[in-house]
Amino acid sequence: MLFFENDYGYGAHPKVLEYLAQTNMEPVSGYGNDKFTASAAEKIKAAADCPDAQVYFLTGGTQTNMVVIDTLLRPYEGVVASSCGHVNTHEAGAIESTGHKVLTVPHKNGKLDADDLREYVQTFYADASHDHMVFPGMVYISHPSEYGTLYTKNELERLSAVCREFSMPLFLDGARLGYGLTADTDVTLADIAKLTDVFYIGGTKCGALCGEAVVFTHGNMPKQFVTMVKRRGAMIAKGRLNALQFDALFTDGLYEKICAPAVKLAIKLRDGLKAKGYRFALESPTNQQFIIVENSRLPELQSKVVYSFIEKYDAEHTVIRLATSWATTEEQVDELLSIL
Amino acid sequence: MLFFENDYGYGAHPKVLEYLAQTNMEPVSGYGNDKFTASAAEKIKAAADCPDAQVYFLTGGTQTNMVVIDTLLRPYEGVVASSCGHVNTHEAGAIESTGHKVLTVPHKNGKLDADDLREYVQTFYADASHDHMVFPGMVYISHPSEYGTLYTKNELERLSAVCREFSMPLFLDGARLGYGLTADTDVTLADIAKLTDVFYIGGTKCGALCGEAVVFTHGNMPKQFVTMVKRRGAMIAKGRLNALQFDALFTDGLYEKICAPAVKLAIKLRDGLKAKGYRFALESPTNQQFIIVENSRLPELQSKVVYSFIEKYDAEHTVIRLATSWATTEEQVDELLSIL
Amino acid sequence: MLFFENDYGYGAHPKVLEYLAQTNMEPVSGYGNDKFTASAAEKIKAAADCPDAQVYFLTGGTQTNMVVIDTLLRPYEGVVASSCGHVNTHEAGAIESTGHKVLTVPHKNGKLDADDLREYVQTFYADASHDHMVFPGMVYISHPSEYGTLYTKNELERLSAVCREFSMPLFLDGARLGYGLTADTDVTLADIAKLTDVFYIGGTKCGALCGEAVVFTHGNMPKQFVTMVKRRGAMIAKGRLNALQFDALFTDGLYEKICAPAVKLAIKLRDGLKAKGYRFALESPTNQQFIIVENSRLPELQSKVVYSFIEKYDAEHTVIRLATSWATTEEQVDELLSIL
Amino acid sequence: MLFFENDYGYGAHPKVLEYLAQTNMEPVSGYGNDKFTASAAEKIKAAADCPDAQVYFLTGGTQTNMVVIDTLLRPYEGVVASSCGHVNTHEAGAIESTGHKVLTVPHKNGKLDADDLREYVQTFYADASHDHMVFPGMVYISHPSEYGTLYTKNELERLSAVCREFSMPLFLDGARLGYGLTADTDVTLADIAKLTDVFYIGGTKCGALCGEAVVFTHGNMPKQFVTMVKRRGAMIAKGRLNALQFDALFTDGLYEKICAPAVKLAIKLRDGLKAKGYRFALESPTNQQFIIVENSRLPELQSKVVYSFIEKYDAEHTVIRLATSWATTEEQVDELLSIL
Repeated sequence: MLFFENDYGYGAHPKVLEYLAQTNMEPVSGYGNDKFTASAAEKIKAAADCPDAQVYFLTGGTQTNMVVIDTLLRPYEGVVASSCGHVNTHEAGAIESTGHKVLTVPHKNGKLDADDLREYVQTFYADASHDHMVFPGMVYISHPSEYGTLYTKNELERLSAVCREFSMPLFLDGARLGYGLTADTDVTLADIAKLTDVFYIGGTKCGALCGEAVVFTHGNMPKQFVTMVKRRGAMIAKGRLNALQFDALFTDGLYEKICAPAVKLAIKLRDGLKAKGYRFALESPTNQQFIIVENSRLPELQSKVVYSFIEKYDAEHTVIRLATSWATTEEQVDELLSIL
Repeated sequence: MLFFENDYGYGAHPKVLEYLAQTNMEPVSGYGNDKFTASAAEKIKAAADCPDAQVYFLTGGTQTNMVVIDTLLRPYEGVVASSCGHVNTHEAGAIESTGHKVLTVPHKNGKLDADDLREYVQTFYADASHDHMVFPGMVYISHPSEYGTLYTKNELERLSAVCREFSMPLFLDGARLGYGLTADTDVTLADIAKLTDVFYIGGTKCGALCGEAVVFTHGNMPKQFVTMVKRRGAMIAKGRLNALQFDALFTDGLYEKICAPAVKLAIKLRDGLKAKGYRFALESPTNQQFIIVENSRLPELQSKVVYSFIEKYDAEHTVIRLATSWATTEEQVDELLSIL
Repeated sequence: MLFFENDYGYGAHPKVLEYLAQTNMEPVSGYGNDKFTASAAEKIKAAADCPDAQVYFLTGGTQTNMVVIDTLLRPYEGVVASSCGHVNTHEAGAIESTGHKVLTVPHKNGKLDADDLREYVQTFYADASHDHMVFPGMVYISHPSEYGTLYTKNELERLSAVCREFSMPLFLDGARLGYGLTADTDVTLADIAKLTDVFYIGGTKCGALCGEAVVFTHGNMPKQFVTMVKRRGAMIAKGRLNALQFDALFTDGLYEKICAPAVKLAIKLRDGLKAKGYRFALESPTNQQFIIVENSRLPELQSKVVYSFIEKYDAEHTVIRLATSWATTEEQVDELLSIL
Repeated sequence: MLFFENDYGYGAHPKVLEYLAQTNMEPVSGYGNDKFTASAAEKIKAAADCPDAQVYFLTGGTQTNMVVIDTLLRPYEGVVASSCGHVNTHEAGAIESTGHKVLTVPHKNGKLDADDLREYVQTFYADASHDHMVFPGMVYISHPSEYGTLYTKNELERLSAVCREFSMPLFLDGARLGYGLTADTDVTLADIAKLTDVFYIGGTKCGALCGEAVVFTHGNMPKQFVTMVKRRGAMIAKGRLNALQFDALFTDGLYEKICAPAVKLAIKLRDGLKAKGYRFALESPTNQQFIIVENSRLPELQSKVVYSFIEKYDAEHTVIRLATSWATTEEQVDELLSIL
């Protein structure tokens, strides 16, 4: 059975596991007060060229979005996101569970447009009764987006400018950042560190067993952040677990080295399917491909490939997602192409 | 440097790591919908002799307490705990962050007394204005307690009876359950499953990298529990991570096999220190020992042993904690005894 | 200066004030345990022909929406509302402050359409990942709507049917119910009681100093509702205050008697303005009229009339609201017509 | 039937009602943007001699405590209160519903002792793991206390000093402030304004139908306070209602003029009962008297007087509360004394 269901179906990249095993019997203090955490943070700051940054390791993506947004917003503020933003759709109301509203702007190709954002904020402040409304307090984007699309450097710069104009921190969800950085893009990790106020580097979907590295890019970690992390049940006793994995992933560029092939294979798959006449829900340059399949093809497909159902396209077609990961092999892609 | 600071300073028990490595390249679905999760749950239900139980794997202890308490309480209810209960003292207000009050009863030897509990609840219902007060909605105990002490089977039975009398679910926090089950005790895992409504088996402090196994003992998992777990940011994409570790720990009794020696070594340490004239803050039958040390001894001690500061005892003495774990060796205990 | 800014600019209807004065020196117990509360509840149940209903008096509209929605939803649920629903736009995130998401469906003429609602809910349950999403747990509508429009009896019946099909309580916000019941409509108070699960009768905007009467239509008041009201700071010590006003308003049909003239005057105003060639943002049959005015006319208007700015219509026009109330006189409307 | 159950059993002081009637037909803007609100605020600032203060009118006591505490605390902080503090006991968990813990210190005679407070805070900061605990972020006291007792000026000064030392705002709940200011005390309204950071002047229990006036004593109202008030459902549309009552109460010293007789009558009652040999649960200098009555006396008493049950004293005695108010007459007290 071929596995293209998602990018979190396997364990960890072998080098990550090796490093866990190698350091296993070194005792260290808990809760992130250990040398592995310090080392991983330094490597990330170096890789992102942001020496004044502060790095904190959390365990999962929804948790990270919840903690970052909750700790950055004032009580009377909400977070602006595109209508398809993960925080708005598939986090079971985690943001609202912390008392904050997700303020939505219709997405364009999975992304938040800077002009749409400016208009939203200007309309808000122009409203005579905005004291009775939720203030736009920060902005959330995901890169790659939920549809696999990427912001260009110019798009990020324009979003960043709007955010700074209205004093709204810009937060970039990088759950799949490895597959974004290694795609056909003009955006580097250093660009992200420069243009956002906080972002996270996804581990779970990019080679780790778990773990997301939150980067406050300019010494702007909220006061008593650790206490607020603990308060949300998001602190783990063995802080080493998340940190060690990033320490491995940011040694010798492993993070990008293992994500790059996944993107190449996704592009090979995309181009192969295009050649066969498949249509796509939208054009994705990263490891997730959203294709439109005739319903009549699905039973056979299901017997050979694990994929994700996304949505009904029309009465006779369905959108499915095929995802590659660091664990995907060229043979698997070739076999998938031969089946489809 | 000797390490007796806590029971979460090392990585995972080698057999746990081995199992992670061995299964690493088998792809499975995410979020707990995988065969490893199913297998681990079955093994736990067998070990606890509770075939109708439902098992869910979470990542950390505070998270587990927060999720279980939040999902079991009605909005107008709080959780009753002893004054030294972890949820009341060292979770940064995680319970309150979900909108619930922790209702406290003074502890006795680190434990909640059944008679004290009954009196608390009776006084509440006798109060003419109890509609303006937080209702006692469930009861939280930890076993071993924060001070390493254990409930006897009779004490658990009496607590359980009060809880059932007043329709309050009884929740047992087993962060260190392995060290409780393998101490000098008349309480078995099956007793706990029979006498409580929900409990968790601690992984993080008992041989895993992370992970706590929540057991709803009689099919009483709250409706849409997974959605509420997700809503609190407590669901991890690679559900396999937590489950695989418990699958290993509950194969061939590994969980108790690796905790038992830690307890034995703690008792050896306790008895050795008693023989040397040391006083203890209280009598603990498990892997945590709380000793009273002259302040003048601390500088030398710190140069040779990592321990935990607990509290000032008096002007000239300090209470420190020495903890053993599955990773502690007899040589380390002997060396510690020779130092102290 | 003419006052058409809103329907809460004056004090209370004189008969309401009189009743407060008349009963002022009769001591009663607090928190709603008094004969006035009991009497007002009975009168409301009679007026709405719902003998099994439970009535509770709260103080303000946002508070009422917050308390009703928070106490009816389960933790994993959100409330479905039209995109222009008051709970979604002008309550400063009160619903989210209780941890719940407002799930929006685009409005049609200020209203939630039953077919749109059914499609929303069906799409939700058809989504393979809906366990990771906020469940639609109840439905909120306002009648009159935020734009002054009214549901027909048939529209309410169809909404009610969808709600019952999917076990979602239907909640009707009647902040301006008096102006809805006395407009050109086929919907009676008894219809509302029959077709909804909970609704509230607005006092603040319909002749009272404050106060909203929540009606759980079929004995479905949530368990320990008073405790949850208290928990949200929504209980007042002198429960008599809210109750006495409703006791007066529901004596001899005062509530409708004082609202009916306001609606008539609003229609007179509407028809008069139409005759003068004014355009309307939408057609409203109740006491709020939304007219489109040339920006150049506004300075003079502001010097003679207090009105509400609603929004920019285009570069040269603005939408303003003119509201009548129980306190508006025919002379005032005539004078306004002569000015406009 | 004599009424000594509480101080909120009657309507409003007649002068308050008169003022409501007199201003009833003057239309003003809503939500506190009106001349009555401005006038009342100025009168309060003058009475408290705090020209830089900001005044906001809310509706009830629990609501006020909830809003003030929620808006002043940071997310990782809790409020310190005495164990008998209203926020800890009889507000149904309103503080916790906003996500904050109430941190308790045992009370002394109903009050929080400055030395106990200092020790609590010092112990907190001395704890090595205080990052995992709820930070003491502000201090709550009530004056008069829940038991009717009063802080001396010196006690307030010492509490204020501790609060300033540790940067914790001091909040004084003055639900019954009128009865505190007019008792045998060396504390003036100006003292309170000088020594606290925020306090509220109780209206509901001191002559108003509803309403509490929150005073931020030195321009320290939290940013966007109105939005946060709205978010908690605590803003009323007719802001005039609360404001007008305080406008009346702070005209010509009415507030103290009507509370002083209530205190005098309570002292007459106290002294009369002492002369008859009654014992008191504690010595109260204000309008609430807590007496110990033989259970055998209660049935007869209940047939003649409405009083409040407080608690069982011992097997044969009960503590009851007798409260006077601005509405109590000397005849009523004489009759009560003749009965008891």
